Amino acid sequence: MFNQAPPVERLVEAFRRLPGIGKRTAERLALHLLSAPAEEARALSAAVREARDRITTCGVCCNLTDVDPCAICADERRDHSTLCVVERPAGALAIEKGGTYRGLYHVLHGALSPMEGVGPSELRIDRLLRRIEEGSIREVIVATNATSEGEATALYLSREIGARGVAVTRIAHGVPMGGGLEFADDATLAHALQGRTRL
Amino acid sequence: MFNQAPPVERLVEAFRRLPGIGKRTAERLALHLLSAPAEEARALSAAVREARDRITTCGVCCNLTDVDPCAICADERRDHSTLCVVERPAGALAIEKGGTYRGLYHVLHGALSPMEGVGPSELRIDRLLRRIEEGSIREVIVATNATSEGEATALYLSREIGARGVAVTRIAHGVPMGGGLEFADDATLAHALQGRTRL
Repeated sequence: MFNQAPPVERLVEAFRRLPGIGKRTAERLALHLLSAPAEEARALSAAVREARDRITTCGVCCNLTDVDPCAICADERRDHSTLCVVERPAGALAIEKGGTYRGLYHVLHGALSPMEGVGPSELRIDRLLRRIEEGSIREVIVATNATSEGEATALYLSREIGARGVAVTRIAHGVPMGGGLEFADDATLAHALQGRTRL
Repeated sequence: MFNQAPPVERLVEAFRRLPGIGKRTAERLALHLLSAPAEEARALSAAVREARDRITTCGVCCNLTDVDPCAICADERRDHSTLCVVERPAGALAIEKGGTYRGLYHVLHGALSPMEGVGPSELRIDRLLRRIEEGSIREVIVATNATSEGEATALYLSREIGARGVAVTRIAHGVPMGGGLEFADDATLAHALQGRTRL
């Protein structure tokens, strides 16, 4: 079997470690970078290093940020009485892009998963409860994923937060907007029926 | 509209410049690297920089390599009387992975395209013709792409190489192995009929 030059092999392997990137895609990306202007490869190398060096987690909401507290937590025009709890920074980003949510976030960096040894102390749940105990939060919207881990996390949070006298809500699950019923899976349809609202 | 921290934005932009990577995928890759162990980001950054710094083109065949001449050109067990001409390093890699070709390569780094101002002098054609004039090549297999640019390049090469008294062949085009006729496009089917061989 043909082996490429070791630096190319290492580049292919580094790309393959990224989620959703298989061997063929990794090879395509590597060969592109080697044929493209050197500036493009330098920019990618520097961007990866710089992002990893400069980005930390916000001391308040645990989202990714380059300033502490993050731009969202520091924004006085936002509603500081509402928190949206997400598993990952990607979830907060998705909701921000929606453009309708004006409250703050709390990023757990995972979900409860006893099978994988992830308990409450492995997540940023203690910090969430401390934020709530400070007294200015009126509603916590739990937007963990619609997986068994996400649901278990939502149940755990609803008990802990409810015990502190703060309202806990869960984002709605159902048929996506614009999606035909025939494209929705059984679990989604069951959820959509169960969560029906009066017209 | 929400803006992410500048280092994250720059990382997303660097990923987006790669072929086949859209905005959502670029965001997913960036957020993954920021959540994954720091070692993974460092390895990617270093691999990109190292590959770009250490990989050059072979002085003989113009393929990408970290030693000159490249491992293929330097391999005495290969057939040094046969050249396979490809547009890009990816083409040579694809044929190498096939595992049946034992000759050498010549990488043009493009194809003739008068519309985009790519003439023979923009490609590594002069070097190819010099290799042929050295006298040890007996057959040149033209494996440029089955596009109008690749076909024009094949035609040009067949004239130039033929004038030097060396056999020029073109790889076969037709229905892919394992592919049903119903999945092949019209041009491929026409080619497959035209290039039929006696059973």
